[in-house]
Amino acid sequence: MHQRVEVLLPPQEGSSSIERLQRAVATRENMLSLSGGLPAQSLFPRRVIATATLAAIGRADCAALQYGWPEGAPELRSWIARRLCARGAHITADDVIVTSGAQQAIALVVDALLRPGSSVAVDAESYPAALDLFRARGLVPTTSMDASLVYLMCGVTNPRSVGVDGARLRAVLASGVPVIADEAYAELRFDGVVDRPLLADARDRTFLVGTFSKTLCPGFRLGWLVPPGAYREDLLRLKAGADLQANSLGQAILAEMVADWDYDAHLARARTVYSRRADALVSAVRRFLPSFHVAAPEGGFSVFVESDAAGDDASFLRVAVEHGTAFDPGRLFRVDTAAAPLSFRLCHSSVRLNAIAEAVRRLARAWLVFRRHAPAVSVGR
Amino acid sequence: MHQRVEVLLPPQEGSSSIERLQRAVATRENMLSLSGGLPAQSLFPRRVIATATLAAIGRADCAALQYGWPEGAPELRSWIARRLCARGAHITADDVIVTSGAQQAIALVVDALLRPGSSVAVDAESYPAALDLFRARGLVPTTSMDASLVYLMCGVTNPRSVGVDGARLRAVLASGVPVIADEAYAELRFDGVVDRPLLADARDRTFLVGTFSKTLCPGFRLGWLVPPGAYREDLLRLKAGADLQANSLGQAILAEMVADWDYDAHLARARTVYSRRADALVSAVRRFLPSFHVAAPEGGFSVFVESDAAGDDASFLRVAVEHGTAFDPGRLFRVDTAAAPLSFRLCHSSVRLNAIAEAVRRLARAWLVFRRHAPAVSVGR
Repeated sequence: MHQRVEVLLPPQEGSSSIERLQRAVATRENMLSLSGGLPAQSLFPRRVIATATLAAIGRADCAALQYGWPEGAPELRSWIARRLCARGAHITADDVIVTSGAQQAIALVVDALLRPGSSVAVDAESYPAALDLFRARGLVPTTSMDASLVYLMCGVTNPRSVGVDGARLRAVLASGVPVIADEAYAELRFDGVVDRPLLADARDRTFLVGTFSKTLCPGFRLGWLVPPGAYREDLLRLKAGADLQANSLGQAILAEMVADWDYDAHLARARTVYSRRADALVSAVRRFLPSFHVAAPEGGFSVFVESDAAGDDASFLRVAVEHGTAFDPGRLFRVDTAAAPLSFRLCHSSVRLNAIAEAVRRLARAWLVFRRHAPAVSVGR
Repeated sequence: MHQRVEVLLPPQEGSSSIERLQRAVATRENMLSLSGGLPAQSLFPRRVIATATLAAIGRADCAALQYGWPEGAPELRSWIARRLCARGAHITADDVIVTSGAQQAIALVVDALLRPGSSVAVDAESYPAALDLFRARGLVPTTSMDASLVYLMCGVTNPRSVGVDGARLRAVLASGVPVIADEAYAELRFDGVVDRPLLADARDRTFLVGTFSKTLCPGFRLGWLVPPGAYREDLLRLKAGADLQANSLGQAILAEMVADWDYDAHLARARTVYSRRADALVSAVRRFLPSFHVAAPEGGFSVFVESDAAGDDASFLRVAVEHGTAFDPGRLFRVDTAAAPLSFRLCHSSVRLNAIAEAVRRLARAWLVFRRHAPAVSVGR
């Protein structure tokens, strides 16, 4: 009787086999996975969170468990605004919308501004969940600057974990096109420098996106969006339509935490941990995978590793998993997947320092097996 | 230099003045507000939540603070599936997607199935945030059954808080059109009866929506979606694009809670509290606002109160706020706002039992003042 209604999503290009592998990795014992971009569990300030939770739940108004407003808790928005102002922005708490993570912030901007068929300028490698979102919405990610919107990872990029190219930034500023400035990793530069936010210089077209997921923990699922003032009302309406508000509990816990906890000291600890892990990862890649190219990262959770040869990154992942490790295939980060050399992202962030070399050793063994079965084809560089 | 990009949202019909009033109510002292649809704070099981939080944060894998999968935590999905099966459904945990509240579940279905211009069949009065969402997406809510999708509040409707009309349900089942079956209040019928879920009889086209916001607390921002199997993958992709996943912390707390806490006993307590408050509200309306019509609710948080006369519900709200109370204007719930008599939703759910009569007394005083300044015009019934 019922005809299945046509679903409006464009087809997804062969990433479901990769997802199946990633899911297998998660349940496999004795894996040393270099995939996923997960923060280090050892950095989660569990005791501080537990104390803040009890305080938040115990408050007389019990805002932690009740409904809130679409824009989020005022204390938290004030704190976010103050930190941005300290970096050169001129905004107030009213300019900030608390979102269900950075992902939602990106989705809201896209839904407010772009129709299917519009193009979004991205780096040659970019954040996979943003690329997926763009494609699911019928948008066209492109490395050309001739686009309706620019999506830029500011401060520290993903997957290469380097600063934004200066020429690219100047081109973006000169273009006059709206920009999503995704600062997910911006506070995790190893040298402790946090760039002046793009919105300080292009307030009328910068949609600043931030998150607690990389610096604190992903479990709260809380981020923020600072749009140009003229877009605030429309974005708030979209936010309310999407999920009414970000979860009150996480917001209330964070409001307690930031009131008397030294977040900057926490960031400093995190930078130290990730910087050491990054060093170990780069050393291990250079030692055990000498035919690959890798650049030392300036911050963040990962490096991007490239070979000189073409090859199927998903097939290599299958072999890697058999050898007890995993990575994120390069194609997930790319707009143009044809003719790109075999490459992948390696994340050091969630692997203990003394296990990183062993993880790369496993990957090197997998590479030997993979090459024997799938001889490399040079694609030139 | 920068031209403001046209925002894609259709204009919102005069509800911003109502929102301003609602926000004023929230900060005003000595208010006895009958608006909002908030659950009773006294029913939040704070001690159980605090204990579960400490257990969740203390677990070795720390899943409460880490990333999870787009479909949500397995323990929680199993629990949701088991409860639905006990009511006659034939599903498993894999059929369940944990969402960022019921609102997101509705938004995902709409985004997967409907293009702008499509119509959505709704009750003559329906859930305002769903109506807002439909309009923001360029959809056309209609009371006609000739639509691309039906949005139905099952078990207990909002704002009237009665069961679904049997003839309407038969018409929906016969139509073969996809149905969003929103069970937000379904477990809060005062007689304790929880209807057989619609998906038990129309699995291939029912998108079941549920939430913890009304029965437990809104602060977790967690709900669920059980779509027909053929739509699961597309909806999961939309879910990942929207916010990657629902917050891990709330899911981990809930997984701890439901493992050894008597949720049904909690529901029974909640029904008792809300049933008493509903009785007090209906009695007070009949006593202090005798010219209005109100039907005794069968469950839920609210009643819908109607006059015989036309009038501006937003203006009346302004007067009510001056008198120390508030309600939700009838127009927020309606598809067809022209020619409807003045009406409003009154919520008993978040007002203490012994304060309900006083809140309605204030409303009656406001009504006298309002009528003096805006004489009633009969619109017939």
